[in-house]
Amino acid sequence: MCVKKNTSSNRVNKMKIAIIGIGLIGGSMALKLKQKQFATKVYGVDFNEQHLTDAKKLKIIDKISDLENAVQNSNVIIIAIPVDGTKKILSKILDLITDKQTVLDVGSTKSGIIKSIERHPKRNRFVATHPMWGTENSGPEYATLDAFKERAAVICDAENSAKDALELAQKLYENLEMNLLYMNSEDHDIHTAYISHISHITSYALANTVLEKEKEEDTIFQLASSGFSSTVRLAKSHPEMWVPIFKQNKENVLDVLNEHITQLRKFKSALEKENYDYLEELILNANKIRGILK
Amino acid sequence: MCVKKNTSSNRVNKMKIAIIGIGLIGGSMALKLKQKQFATKVYGVDFNEQHLTDAKKLKIIDKISDLENAVQNSNVIIIAIPVDGTKKILSKILDLITDKQTVLDVGSTKSGIIKSIERHPKRNRFVATHPMWGTENSGPEYATLDAFKERAAVICDAENSAKDALELAQKLYENLEMNLLYMNSEDHDIHTAYISHISHITSYALANTVLEKEKEEDTIFQLASSGFSSTVRLAKSHPEMWVPIFKQNKENVLDVLNEHITQLRKFKSALEKENYDYLEELILNANKIRGILK
Repeated sequence: MCVKKNTSSNRVNKMKIAIIGIGLIGGSMALKLKQKQFATKVYGVDFNEQHLTDAKKLKIIDKISDLENAVQNSNVIIIAIPVDGTKKILSKILDLITDKQTVLDVGSTKSGIIKSIERHPKRNRFVATHPMWGTENSGPEYATLDAFKERAAVICDAENSAKDALELAQKLYENLEMNLLYMNSEDHDIHTAYISHISHITSYALANTVLEKEKEEDTIFQLASSGFSSTVRLAKSHPEMWVPIFKQNKENVLDVLNEHITQLRKFKSALEKENYDYLEELILNANKIRGILK
Repeated sequence: MCVKKNTSSNRVNKMKIAIIGIGLIGGSMALKLKQKQFATKVYGVDFNEQHLTDAKKLKIIDKISDLENAVQNSNVIIIAIPVDGTKKILSKILDLITDKQTVLDVGSTKSGIIKSIERHPKRNRFVATHPMWGTENSGPEYATLDAFKERAAVICDAENSAKDALELAQKLYENLEMNLLYMNSEDHDIHTAYISHISHITSYALANTVLEKEKEEDTIFQLASSGFSSTVRLAKSHPEMWVPIFKQNKENVLDVLNEHITQLRKFKSALEKENYDYLEELILNANKIRGILK
Protein backbone atom coordinates (compact mmCIF):
# COMPACT_ATOMS: atom_id res chain seq x y z
CA MET A 1 0.00 0.00 0.00
CA CYS A 2 2.79 2.46 0.89
CA VAL A 3 4.28 1.71 -2.48
CA LYS A 4 1.36 3.50 -3.97
CA LYS A 5 1.68 6.61 -1.80
CA ASN A 6 5.36 7.14 -2.51
CA THR A 7 5.15 8.54 -5.95
CA SER A 8 1.58 8.69 -7.04
CA SER A 9 0.48 12.06 -5.65
CA ASN A 10 2.27 14.27 -8.13
CA ARG A 11 1.82 12.06 -11.14
CA VAL A 12 -1.59 10.46 -11.22
CA ASN A 13 -3.82 13.34 -12.15
CA LYS A 14 -3.91 15.74 -15.05
CA MET A 15 -2.09 13.39 -17.33
CA LYS A 16 -1.44 13.98 -20.97
CA ILE A 17 -2.08 10.70 -22.68
CA ALA A 18 -1.15 9.41 -26.13
CA ILE A 19 -3.37 6.66 -27.42
CA ILE A 20 -1.84 4.67 -30.25
CA GLY A 21 -4.77 3.00 -31.99
CA ILE A 22 -7.95 4.88 -31.29
CA GLY A 23 -10.48 2.08 -31.81
CA LEU A 24 -12.95 0.29 -29.55
CA ILE A 25 -10.48 -0.24 -26.68
CA GLY A 26 -8.34 2.89 -26.96
CA GLY A 27 -11.44 4.99 -27.50
CA SER A 28 -13.31 3.56 -24.51
CA MET A 29 -10.27 4.15 -22.30
CA ALA A 30 -9.94 7.75 -23.49
CA LEU A 31 -13.61 8.50 -22.81
CA LYS A 32 -13.47 7.28 -19.23
CA LEU A 33 -10.06 8.72 -18.36
CA LYS A 34 -11.21 12.13 -19.57
CA GLN A 35 -14.50 11.93 -17.70
CA LYS A 36 -12.59 11.07 -14.53
CA GLN A 37 -10.20 13.96 -15.20
CA PHE A 38 -7.33 11.52 -15.00
CA ALA A 39 -6.48 12.69 -18.52
CA THR A 40 -6.50 16.39 -19.35
CA LYS A 41 -5.40 15.97 -22.92
CA VAL A 42 -5.57 12.95 -25.22
CA TYR A 43 -3.46 12.70 -28.37
CA GLY A 44 -4.78 10.22 -30.91
CA VAL A 45 -2.47 8.33 -33.27
CA ASP A 46 -3.83 5.93 -35.88
CA PHE A 47 -2.99 4.97 -39.44
CA ASN A 48 -6.74 4.88 -40.09
CA GLU A 49 -7.62 8.49 -40.97
CA GLN A 50 -11.34 7.84 -40.63
CA HIS A 51 -10.91 6.57 -37.06
CA LEU A 52 -8.96 9.72 -36.20
CA THR A 53 -11.59 12.03 -37.70
CA ASP A 54 -14.40 10.10 -35.99
CA ALA A 55 -12.57 10.08 -32.64
CA LYS A 56 -12.01 13.83 -32.84
CA LYS A 57 -15.64 14.48 -33.78
CA LEU A 58 -16.84 12.24 -30.93
CA LYS A 59 -14.55 14.13 -28.51
CA ILE A 60 -12.74 10.93 -27.66
CA ILE A 61 -9.41 12.60 -28.47
CA ASP A 62 -8.39 16.23 -28.23
CA LYS A 63 -5.71 16.25 -30.88
CA ILE A 64 -4.86 14.20 -33.95
CA SER A 65 -1.12 13.63 -33.92
CA ASP A 66 1.74 11.68 -35.43
CA LEU A 67 3.53 9.12 -33.26
CA GLU A 68 6.63 11.18 -32.44
CA ASN A 69 4.72 14.30 -31.46
CA ALA A 70 2.17 12.37 -29.37
CA VAL A 71 4.88 10.45 -27.52
CA GLN A 72 6.97 13.58 -26.87
CA ASN A 73 4.04 15.48 -25.38
CA SER A 74 2.53 12.76 -23.16
CA ASN A 75 3.06 11.42 -19.66
CA VAL A 76 1.50 8.07 -20.57
CA ILE A 77 1.51 6.26 -23.89
CA ILE A 78 -1.16 3.55 -24.33
CA ILE A 79 -0.69 1.14 -27.21
CA ALA A 80 -4.07 -0.25 -28.27
CA ILE A 81 -3.43 -1.81 -31.68
CA PRO A 82 -3.35 -5.46 -32.86
CA VAL A 83 -0.62 -7.41 -31.05
CA ASP A 84 1.62 -7.80 -34.11
CA GLY A 85 1.67 -4.01 -34.45
CA THR A 86 2.50 -3.64 -30.76
CA LYS A 87 5.46 -5.98 -31.13
CA LYS A 88 6.76 -3.86 -34.02
CA ILE A 89 6.20 -0.44 -32.48
CA LEU A 90 6.96 -0.91 -28.79
CA SER A 91 10.75 -0.81 -29.04
CA LYS A 92 10.59 2.32 -31.19
CA ILE A 93 8.36 4.04 -28.62
CA LEU A 94 10.70 3.10 -25.77
CA ASP A 95 13.53 4.66 -27.83
CA LEU A 96 11.60 7.94 -27.88
CA ILE A 97 10.69 8.30 -24.20
CA THR A 98 12.42 9.68 -21.13
CA ASP A 99 12.55 8.12 -17.66
CA LYS A 100 9.57 10.23 -16.65
CA GLN A 101 7.22 8.65 -19.15
CA THR A 102 5.26 5.40 -18.95
CA VAL A 103 4.19 3.06 -21.74
CA LEU A 104 1.31 0.56 -21.47
CA ASP A 105 -0.01 -1.96 -23.93
CA VAL A 106 -3.47 -3.51 -23.69
CA GLY A 107 -3.02 -6.54 -25.95
CA SER A 108 -4.57 -10.02 -25.54
CA THR A 109 -1.16 -11.75 -25.59
CA LYS A 110 1.72 -10.86 -23.33
CA SER A 111 4.78 -13.17 -23.57
CA GLY A 112 5.79 -12.29 -27.13
CA ILE A 113 5.36 -8.58 -26.60
CA ILE A 114 7.40 -8.58 -23.40
CA LYS A 115 10.14 -10.72 -24.96
CA SER A 116 10.47 -8.26 -27.83
CA ILE A 117 11.76 -5.55 -25.47
CA GLU A 118 13.22 -7.54 -22.55
CA ARG A 119 16.71 -6.16 -23.14
CA HIS A 120 15.66 -2.64 -24.01
CA PRO A 121 17.34 -0.07 -21.70
CA LYS A 122 13.90 1.46 -21.02
CA ARG A 123 12.20 -1.92 -20.31
CA ASN A 124 11.20 -0.72 -16.85
CA ARG A 125 9.15 2.18 -18.26
CA PHE A 126 6.82 -0.39 -19.83
CA VAL A 127 3.85 -1.99 -18.06
CA ALA A 128 2.28 -4.99 -19.81
CA THR A 129 -1.48 -5.01 -19.21
CA HIS A 130 -4.63 -6.66 -20.47
CA PRO A 131 -8.04 -5.21 -19.70
CA MET A 132 -10.43 -8.16 -20.19
CA TRP A 133 -13.10 -6.60 -22.29
CA GLY A 134 -13.96 -6.37 -25.96
CA THR A 135 -16.77 -6.93 -28.39
CA GLU A 136 -17.04 -8.20 -31.95
CA ASN A 137 -17.05 -4.57 -33.15
CA SER A 138 -14.14 -2.26 -33.82
CA GLY A 139 -13.63 1.44 -34.33
CA PRO A 140 -14.07 4.53 -32.12
CA GLU A 141 -17.79 4.77 -32.91
CA TYR A 142 -18.29 1.73 -30.67
CA ALA A 143 -16.33 3.21 -27.76
CA THR A 144 -18.36 3.47 -24.55
CA LEU A 145 -17.80 5.18 -21.25
CA ASP A 146 -18.35 2.26 -18.90
CA ALA A 147 -16.92 -0.51 -21.07
CA PHE A 148 -14.43 -1.71 -18.47
CA LYS A 149 -16.39 -1.20 -15.27
CA GLU A 150 -15.95 -4.05 -12.78
CA ARG A 151 -14.12 -6.27 -15.25
CA ALA A 152 -10.66 -7.77 -14.72
CA ALA A 153 -7.47 -6.06 -15.82
CA VAL A 154 -4.31 -8.15 -15.70
CA ILE A 155 -0.86 -6.69 -15.11
CA CYS A 156 1.93 -9.04 -16.18
CA ASP A 157 5.50 -9.35 -14.89
CA ALA A 158 4.90 -6.31 -12.68
CA GLU A 159 8.30 -6.76 -11.03
CA ASN A 160 10.03 -5.72 -14.23
CA SER A 161 8.36 -2.32 -14.36
CA ALA A 162 9.61 0.71 -12.44
CA LYS A 163 7.67 1.38 -9.25
CA ASP A 164 6.27 4.70 -10.43
CA ALA A 165 5.33 3.31 -13.86
CA LEU A 166 3.48 0.42 -12.22
CA GLU A 167 1.68 2.74 -9.83
CA LEU A 168 0.60 4.95 -12.67
CA ALA A 169 -0.82 1.93 -14.51
CA GLN A 170 -2.61 0.84 -11.33
CA LYS A 171 -4.10 4.28 -10.88
CA LEU A 172 -5.16 4.37 -14.51
CA TYR A 173 -7.04 1.05 -14.21
CA GLU A 174 -8.60 2.17 -10.94
CA ASN A 175 -9.98 5.15 -12.85
CA LEU A 176 -11.42 2.70 -15.37
CA GLU A 177 -13.04 0.98 -12.37
CA MET A 178 -11.42 -2.36 -13.15
CA ASN A 179 -10.34 -5.12 -10.78
CA LEU A 180 -6.59 -5.61 -10.96
CA LEU A 181 -5.01 -9.06 -11.14
CA TYR A 182 -1.32 -9.92 -11.30
CA MET A 183 0.33 -12.85 -13.03
CA ASN A 184 3.38 -13.69 -15.08
CA SER A 185 3.08 -13.40 -18.83
CA GLU A 186 3.32 -17.15 -19.47
CA ASP A 187 0.40 -17.88 -17.11
CA HIS A 188 -1.57 -15.04 -18.67
CA ASP A 189 -1.19 -16.52 -22.13
CA ILE A 190 -2.25 -19.97 -20.94
CA HIS A 191 -5.33 -18.65 -19.14
CA THR A 192 -6.45 -16.40 -21.99
CA ALA A 193 -6.11 -19.31 -24.43
CA TYR A 194 -8.80 -21.08 -22.35
CA ILE A 195 -10.96 -18.19 -21.36
CA SER A 196 -10.92 -16.08 -24.48
CA HIS A 197 -8.96 -17.30 -27.50
CA ILE A 198 -10.62 -20.72 -27.85
CA SER A 199 -14.09 -19.12 -27.69
CA HIS A 200 -13.22 -17.18 -30.82
CA ILE A 201 -12.07 -20.28 -32.68
CA THR A 202 -15.21 -22.26 -31.76
CA SER A 203 -17.34 -19.34 -32.78
CA TYR A 204 -15.56 -18.90 -36.12
CA ALA A 205 -15.75 -22.65 -36.78
CA LEU A 206 -19.44 -22.72 -35.87
CA ALA A 207 -20.17 -19.89 -38.30
CA ASN A 208 -18.24 -21.73 -41.02
CA THR A 209 -20.13 -24.95 -40.23
CA VAL A 210 -23.49 -23.28 -40.61
CA LEU A 211 -22.43 -21.30 -43.69
CA GLU A 212 -21.09 -24.49 -45.26
CA LYS A 213 -24.11 -26.65 -44.54
CA GLU A 214 -26.96 -24.20 -44.53
CA LYS A 215 -27.07 -22.77 -48.02
CA GLU A 216 -30.34 -20.99 -47.41
CA GLU A 217 -29.06 -17.76 -45.86
CA ASP A 218 -32.56 -16.49 -45.51
CA THR A 219 -33.40 -19.47 -43.31
CA ILE A 220 -30.45 -18.73 -41.03
CA PHE A 221 -31.62 -15.18 -40.65
CA GLN A 222 -35.22 -16.09 -39.96
CA LEU A 223 -34.66 -19.06 -37.67
CA ALA A 224 -31.59 -17.96 -35.77
CA SER A 225 -32.47 -18.24 -32.11
CA SER A 226 -30.93 -16.05 -29.45
CA GLY A 227 -28.83 -19.06 -28.44
CA PHE A 228 -27.23 -19.37 -31.85
CA SER A 229 -26.67 -15.63 -32.12
CA SER A 230 -24.99 -15.63 -28.73
CA THR A 231 -22.71 -18.58 -29.55
CA VAL A 232 -21.74 -17.22 -32.95
CA ARG A 233 -21.39 -13.56 -31.96
CA LEU A 234 -17.60 -13.65 -31.69
CA ALA A 235 -17.38 -14.96 -35.27
CA LYS A 236 -17.94 -11.37 -36.34
CA SER A 237 -14.54 -10.37 -34.88
CA HIS A 238 -11.98 -9.11 -37.40
CA PRO A 239 -8.93 -11.09 -38.54
CA GLU A 240 -6.62 -8.04 -38.25
CA MET A 241 -6.95 -8.37 -34.51
CA TRP A 242 -7.27 -12.14 -34.14
CA VAL A 243 -4.75 -13.68 -36.54
CA PRO A 244 -1.86 -11.98 -34.65
CA ILE A 245 -3.26 -13.17 -31.31
CA PHE A 246 -3.47 -16.79 -32.49
CA LYS A 247 -0.02 -16.47 -34.01
CA GLN A 248 1.59 -15.15 -30.82
CA ASN A 249 -0.25 -17.64 -28.62
CA LYS A 250 -0.04 -20.55 -31.03
CA GLU A 251 1.17 -23.29 -28.67
CA ASN A 252 -1.40 -22.61 -25.96
CA VAL A 253 -4.24 -22.18 -28.42
CA LEU A 254 -3.36 -25.45 -30.17
CA ASP A 255 -3.27 -27.21 -26.82
CA VAL A 256 -6.78 -26.03 -25.93
CA LEU A 257 -8.07 -26.61 -29.46
CA ASN A 258 -6.92 -30.23 -29.32
CA GLU A 259 -8.70 -30.67 -26.02
CA HIS A 260 -11.82 -29.05 -27.46
CA ILE A 261 -11.86 -31.42 -30.43
CA THR A 262 -11.45 -34.32 -27.99
CA GLN A 263 -14.43 -33.05 -26.00
CA LEU A 264 -16.55 -32.72 -29.14
CA ARG A 265 -15.60 -36.28 -30.13
CA LYS A 266 -17.04 -37.49 -26.83
CA PHE A 267 -20.40 -36.00 -27.81
CA LYS A 268 -20.06 -37.59 -31.24
CA SER A 269 -19.27 -40.97 -29.73
CA ALA A 270 -22.16 -40.78 -27.25
CA LEU A 271 -24.56 -40.03 -30.11
CA GLU A 272 -23.15 -42.63 -32.50
CA LYS A 273 -23.31 -45.34 -29.85
CA GLU A 274 -26.67 -44.06 -28.63
CA ASN A 275 -25.18 -43.95 -25.17
CA TYR A 276 -27.55 -41.36 -23.71
CA ASP A 277 -26.42 -41.93 -20.15
CA TYR A 278 -22.94 -40.83 -21.22
CA LEU A 279 -24.42 -37.88 -23.11
CA GLU A 280 -26.24 -36.82 -19.96
CA GLU A 281 -23.03 -37.18 -17.97
CA LEU A 282 -21.18 -34.91 -20.42
CA ILE A 283 -23.93 -32.30 -20.19
CA LEU A 284 -24.10 -32.47 -16.40
CA ASN A 285 -20.36 -31.88 -16.28
CA ALA A 286 -20.71 -28.85 -18.58
CA ASN A 287 -23.50 -27.53 -16.35
CA LYS A 288 -20.87 -27.01 -13.62
CA ILE A 289 -19.94 -23.81 -15.46
CA ARG A 290 -23.19 -22.44 -13.98
CA GLY A 291 -21.61 -22.40 -10.54
CA ILE A 292 -18.46 -20.69 -11.77
CA LEU A 293 -19.81 -18.02 -14.06
CA LYS A 294 -22.36 -15.57 -12.80
CA MET B 1 -55.88 -15.14 -46.24
CA CYS B 2 -59.53 -16.05 -46.70
CA VAL B 3 -58.76 -19.29 -44.93
CA LYS B 4 -58.21 -17.32 -41.79
CA LYS B 5 -61.49 -15.44 -41.94
CA ASN B 6 -63.63 -18.54 -42.42
CA THR B 7 -63.56 -19.93 -38.97
CA SER B 8 -61.46 -17.76 -36.74
CA SER B 9 -64.00 -15.21 -35.60
CA ASN B 10 -65.94 -17.44 -33.21
CA ARG B 11 -62.99 -19.42 -31.90
CA VAL B 12 -59.94 -17.27 -31.42
CA ASN B 13 -60.84 -15.30 -28.34
CA LYS B 14 -61.73 -16.20 -24.81
CA MET B 15 -60.00 -19.53 -24.98
CA LYS B 16 -59.58 -21.89 -22.11
CA ILE B 17 -56.07 -23.21 -22.36
CA ALA B 18 -54.35 -26.19 -20.77
CA ILE B 19 -50.61 -25.89 -20.52
CA ILE B 20 -48.84 -29.19 -19.98
CA GLY B 21 -45.44 -28.28 -18.56
CA ILE B 22 -45.56 -24.89 -16.94
CA GLY B 23 -41.89 -23.91 -17.22
CA LEU B 24 -40.01 -21.18 -19.05
CA ILE B 25 -41.79 -21.68 -22.39
CA GLY B 26 -45.26 -22.72 -21.21
CA GLY B 27 -45.17 -20.00 -18.55
CA SER B 28 -44.12 -17.25 -20.95
CA MET B 29 -46.87 -18.28 -23.38
CA ALA B 30 -49.48 -18.23 -20.63
CA LEU B 31 -48.45 -14.76 -19.44
CA LYS B 32 -48.77 -13.21 -22.89
CA LEU B 33 -51.95 -15.03 -23.95
CA LYS B 34 -53.65 -13.88 -20.77
CA GLN B 35 -52.47 -10.31 -21.16
CA LYS B 36 -53.82 -10.27 -24.72
CA GLN B 37 -57.09 -11.78 -23.45
CA PHE B 38 -56.67 -14.59 -25.93
CA ALA B 39 -56.84 -16.89 -22.90
CA THR B 40 -59.50 -16.35 -20.26
CA LYS B 41 -58.49 -19.33 -18.15
CA VAL B 42 -55.24 -21.24 -17.99
CA TYR B 43 -55.03 -24.73 -16.46
CA GLY B 44 -51.52 -25.74 -15.43
CA VAL B 45 -50.39 -29.37 -15.47
CA ASP B 46 -46.93 -30.39 -14.34
CA PHE B 47 -45.35 -33.27 -12.45
CA ASN B 48 -43.18 -30.71 -10.70
CA GLU B 49 -45.28 -29.54 -7.74
CA GLN B 50 -43.02 -26.59 -7.07
CA HIS B 51 -43.43 -25.28 -10.61
CA LEU B 52 -47.21 -25.51 -10.23
CA THR B 53 -47.22 -23.65 -6.92
CA ASP B 54 -44.84 -21.01 -8.28
CA ALA B 55 -46.89 -20.59 -11.46
CA LYS B 56 -50.08 -20.15 -9.47
CA LYS B 57 -48.43 -17.64 -7.15
CA LEU B 58 -47.02 -15.70 -10.10
CA LYS B 59 -50.52 -15.67 -11.71
CA ILE B 60 -49.16 -17.49 -14.73
CA ILE B 61 -51.91 -20.11 -14.37
CA ASP B 62 -55.39 -19.82 -12.93
CA LYS B 63 -55.86 -23.39 -11.84
CA ILE B 64 -53.61 -26.30 -10.93
CA SER B 65 -55.07 -29.39 -12.55
CA ASP B 66 -54.46 -33.01 -13.48
CA LEU B 67 -54.05 -33.89 -17.14
CA GLU B 68 -57.53 -35.34 -17.74
CA ASN B 69 -59.38 -32.46 -16.12
CA ALA B 70 -57.28 -29.80 -17.86
CA VAL B 71 -57.75 -31.43 -21.27
CA GLN B 72 -61.50 -31.89 -20.79
CA ASN B 73 -62.03 -28.25 -19.86
CA SER B 74 -59.87 -26.55 -22.48
CA ASN B 75 -60.26 -25.40 -26.07
CA VAL B 76 -56.53 -25.56 -26.66
CA ILE B 77 -53.95 -27.88 -25.13
CA ILE B 78 -50.32 -26.75 -25.34
CA ILE B 79 -47.66 -29.35 -24.64
CA ALA B 80 -44.49 -27.64 -23.42
CA ILE B 81 -42.41 -30.44 -21.90
CA PRO B 82 -39.15 -32.13 -23.04
CA VAL B 83 -39.62 -33.80 -26.43
CA ASP B 84 -39.40 -37.37 -25.11
CA GLY B 85 -42.31 -36.60 -22.80
CA THR B 86 -44.29 -35.11 -25.68
CA LYS B 87 -43.81 -38.26 -27.74
CA LYS B 88 -45.15 -40.32 -24.83
CA ILE B 89 -48.12 -38.15 -23.92
CA LEU B 90 -49.38 -36.80 -27.25
CA SER B 91 -51.28 -39.91 -28.34
CA LYS B 92 -52.96 -40.14 -24.94
CA ILE B 93 -54.07 -36.50 -25.16
CA LEU B 94 -55.48 -37.01 -28.66
CA ASP B 95 -57.45 -39.96 -27.24
CA LEU B 96 -59.06 -37.61 -24.73
CA ILE B 97 -60.14 -34.74 -26.99
CA THR B 98 -63.14 -34.06 -29.19
CA ASP B 99 -63.13 -32.65 -32.73
CA LYS B 100 -63.64 -29.18 -31.32
CA GLN B 101 -60.37 -29.12 -29.44
CA THR B 102 -56.87 -28.33 -30.67
CA VAL B 103 -53.52 -29.67 -29.45
CA LEU B 104 -50.19 -27.91 -30.01
CA ASP B 105 -46.68 -28.89 -29.07
CA VAL B 106 -43.77 -26.46 -28.89
CA GLY B 107 -40.82 -28.87 -29.00
CA SER B 108 -37.44 -28.33 -30.67
CA THR B 109 -37.76 -31.52 -32.77
CA LYS B 110 -40.69 -32.30 -35.00
CA SER B 111 -40.32 -35.46 -37.16
CA GLY B 112 -40.33 -38.01 -34.35
CA ILE B 113 -43.23 -36.40 -32.55
CA ILE B 114 -45.35 -36.21 -35.69
CA LYS B 115 -44.51 -39.79 -36.64
CA SER B 116 -45.65 -41.01 -33.23
CA ILE B 117 -49.26 -39.99 -33.99
CA GLU B 118 -49.40 -40.05 -37.79
CA ARG B 119 -52.08 -42.75 -37.83
CA HIS B 120 -54.06 -41.46 -34.89
CA PRO B 121 -57.71 -40.82 -35.82
CA LYS B 122 -57.42 -37.35 -34.29
CA ARG B 123 -54.11 -36.49 -36.08
CA ASN B 124 -55.74 -33.48 -37.70
CA ARG B 125 -56.51 -31.87 -34.31
CA PHE B 126 -52.77 -31.60 -33.69
CA VAL B 127 -50.61 -28.70 -34.90
CA ALA B 128 -46.83 -29.23 -34.66
CA THR B 129 -45.14 -25.94 -33.81
CA HIS B 130 -41.79 -24.60 -32.64
CA PRO B 131 -41.48 -21.10 -31.25
CA MET B 132 -37.78 -20.26 -31.68
CA TRP B 133 -36.94 -18.88 -28.29
CA GLY B 134 -35.42 -20.19 -25.09
CA THR B 135 -32.74 -19.46 -22.56
CA GLU B 136 -30.38 -21.54 -20.46
CA ASN B 137 -32.83 -21.23 -17.57
CA SER B 138 -35.91 -23.28 -16.79
CA GLY B 139 -38.94 -22.99 -14.55
CA PRO B 140 -41.90 -20.61 -14.38
CA GLU B 141 -39.94 -18.04 -12.35
CA TYR B 142 -38.04 -17.22 -15.55
CA ALA B 143 -41.21 -16.75 -17.63
CA THR B 144 -41.48 -13.30 -19.22
CA LEU B 145 -44.25 -11.47 -21.00
CA ASP B 146 -42.47 -10.51 -24.20
CA ALA B 147 -40.26 -13.57 -24.57
CA PHE B 148 -41.44 -14.45 -28.06
CA LYS B 149 -41.95 -10.99 -29.54
CA GLU B 150 -40.76 -10.72 -33.16
CA ARG B 151 -39.09 -14.12 -33.12
CA ALA B 152 -39.83 -16.93 -35.54
CA ALA B 153 -42.42 -19.62 -34.88
CA VAL B 154 -42.40 -22.61 -37.21
CA ILE B 155 -45.50 -24.62 -38.06
CA CYS B 156 -44.69 -28.04 -39.52
CA ASP B 157 -46.68 -30.20 -41.91
CA ALA B 158 -49.53 -27.71 -41.72
CA GLU B 159 -51.47 -29.57 -44.42
CA ASN B 160 -52.08 -32.45 -42.01
CA SER B 161 -53.87 -30.28 -39.47
CA ALA B 162 -57.57 -29.40 -39.72
CA LYS B 163 -58.18 -25.92 -41.10
CA ASP B 164 -59.71 -24.59 -37.89
CA ALA B 165 -56.97 -26.12 -35.72
CA LEU B 166 -54.31 -24.54 -37.90
CA GLU B 167 -56.05 -21.16 -37.83
CA LEU B 168 -56.28 -21.30 -34.08
CA ALA B 169 -52.55 -22.01 -33.83
CA GLN B 170 -51.84 -19.12 -36.20
CA LYS B 171 -53.97 -16.78 -34.16
CA LEU B 172 -52.28 -17.93 -30.97
CA TYR B 173 -48.81 -17.16 -32.35
CA GLU B 174 -50.02 -13.81 -33.68
CA ASN B 175 -51.02 -12.99 -30.12
CA LEU B 176 -47.51 -13.93 -29.04
CA GLU B 177 -46.34 -11.43 -31.72
CA MET B 178 -44.26 -14.05 -33.50
CA ASN B 179 -43.43 -14.31 -37.21
CA LEU B 180 -44.87 -17.52 -38.64
CA LEU B 181 -42.87 -19.78 -40.94
CA TYR B 182 -44.00 -23.00 -42.57
CA MET B 183 -41.92 -26.04 -43.44
CA ASN B 184 -42.11 -29.81 -43.41
CA SER B 185 -40.91 -31.56 -40.29
CA GLU B 186 -37.83 -33.11 -41.96
CA ASP B 187 -36.58 -29.70 -43.12
CA HIS B 188 -37.31 -28.25 -39.70
CA ASP B 189 -35.15 -30.86 -38.00
CA ILE B 190 -32.28 -30.28 -40.43
CA HIS B 191 -32.39 -26.49 -40.00
CA THR B 192 -32.64 -26.59 -36.22
CA ALA B 193 -29.67 -28.98 -36.07
CA TYR B 194 -27.61 -26.18 -37.69
CA ILE B 195 -29.16 -23.16 -36.11
CA SER B 196 -29.79 -24.35 -32.59
CA HIS B 197 -28.78 -27.89 -31.64
CA ILE B 198 -25.10 -27.69 -32.66
CA SER B 199 -24.69 -24.42 -30.72
CA HIS B 200 -25.57 -26.31 -27.58
CA ILE B 201 -23.06 -29.08 -28.26
CA THR B 202 -20.23 -26.60 -28.97
CA SER B 203 -21.12 -24.70 -25.85
CA TYR B 204 -21.21 -27.84 -23.68
CA ALA B 205 -17.92 -29.04 -25.18
CA LEU B 206 -16.32 -25.64 -24.63
CA ALA B 207 -17.36 -25.66 -20.99
CA ASN B 208 -15.94 -29.18 -20.59
CA THR B 209 -12.70 -28.09 -22.31
CA VAL B 210 -12.21 -25.20 -19.95
CA LEU B 211 -13.23 -27.20 -16.89
CA GLU B 212 -10.82 -29.97 -17.91
CA LYS B 213 -7.84 -27.73 -18.63
CA GLU B 214 -8.36 -24.83 -16.30
CA LYS B 215 -8.22 -26.28 -12.84
CA GLU B 216 -8.18 -22.87 -11.21
CA GLU B 217 -11.91 -22.20 -11.05
CA ASP B 218 -11.29 -18.90 -9.41
CA THR B 219 -9.26 -17.80 -12.43
CA ILE B 220 -12.13 -18.70 -14.77
CA PHE B 221 -14.46 -16.63 -12.69
CA GLN B 222 -12.17 -13.64 -12.47
CA LEU B 223 -10.89 -13.61 -16.02
CA ALA B 224 -13.99 -14.70 -17.94
CA SER B 225 -14.56 -12.06 -20.57
CA SER B 226 -17.99 -11.23 -21.91
CA GLY B 227 -17.01 -13.14 -25.06
CA PHE B 228 -16.42 -16.37 -23.17
CA SER B 229 -19.57 -15.96 -21.11
CA SER B 230 -21.58 -15.44 -24.28
CA THR B 231 -20.11 -18.48 -26.04
CA VAL B 232 -20.53 -20.74 -23.03
CA ARG B 233 -23.94 -19.49 -21.91
CA LEU B 234 -25.86 -22.39 -23.47
CA ALA B 235 -23.72 -24.87 -21.53
CA LYS B 236 -25.91 -24.08 -18.56
CA SER B 237 -28.91 -25.71 -20.29
CA HIS B 238 -30.34 -28.79 -18.59
CA PRO B 239 -29.93 -32.36 -19.84
CA GLU B 240 -33.61 -33.20 -19.19
CA MET B 241 -34.45 -30.96 -22.12
CA TRP B 242 -31.43 -31.51 -24.36
CA VAL B 243 -30.68 -35.24 -24.25
CA PRO B 244 -34.13 -36.04 -25.75
CA ILE B 245 -33.62 -33.40 -28.46
CA PHE B 246 -30.24 -34.83 -29.47
CA LYS B 247 -31.72 -38.33 -29.34
CA GLN B 248 -34.66 -37.49 -31.60
CA ASN B 249 -32.53 -35.48 -34.01
CA LYS B 250 -29.49 -37.76 -33.84
CA GLU B 251 -28.75 -38.14 -37.56
CA ASN B 252 -28.92 -34.43 -38.35
CA VAL B 253 -26.97 -33.43 -35.25
CA LEU B 254 -24.23 -35.97 -36.04
CA ASP B 255 -24.04 -34.67 -39.58
CA VAL B 256 -23.50 -31.08 -38.39
CA LEU B 257 -21.19 -32.16 -35.58
CA ASN B 258 -18.94 -33.96 -38.06
CA GLU B 259 -18.82 -30.85 -40.21
CA HIS B 260 -18.05 -28.73 -37.15
CA ILE B 261 -15.13 -30.98 -36.17
CA THR B 262 -13.88 -30.72 -39.78
CA GLN B 263 -14.05 -26.93 -39.56
CA LEU B 264 -12.17 -26.91 -36.26
CA ARG B 265 -9.49 -29.14 -37.79
CA LYS B 266 -8.97 -26.50 -40.47
CA PHE B 267 -8.08 -23.98 -37.76
CA LYS B 268 -5.82 -26.56 -36.15
CA SER B 269 -4.08 -27.25 -39.42
CA ALA B 270 -3.64 -23.54 -40.22
CA LEU B 271 -2.02 -23.02 -36.81
CA GLU B 272 0.14 -26.15 -36.91
CA LYS B 273 1.46 -25.27 -40.36
CA GLU B 274 1.73 -21.60 -39.42
CA ASN B 275 -0.31 -20.84 -42.52
CA TYR B 276 -1.66 -17.48 -41.38
CA ASP B 277 -3.04 -16.57 -44.80
CA TYR B 278 -5.27 -19.63 -44.58
CA LEU B 279 -6.20 -18.71 -41.00
CA GLU B 280 -7.21 -15.25 -42.20
CA GLU B 281 -9.24 -16.80 -44.99
CA LEU B 282 -11.11 -19.01 -42.51
CA ILE B 283 -11.86 -16.02 -40.32
CA LEU B 284 -12.96 -13.82 -43.23
CA ASN B 285 -15.36 -16.56 -44.27
CA ALA B 286 -16.76 -16.76 -40.74
CA ASN B 287 -17.18 -12.97 -40.76
CA LYS B 288 -19.87 -13.42 -43.43
CA ILE B 289 -22.23 -14.30 -40.60
CA ARG B 290 -22.17 -10.55 -39.88
CA GLY B 291 -24.18 -9.89 -43.02
CA ILE B 292 -26.70 -12.61 -42.22
CA LEU B 293 -27.34 -12.08 -38.53
CA LYS B 294 -28.40 -8.70 -37.30
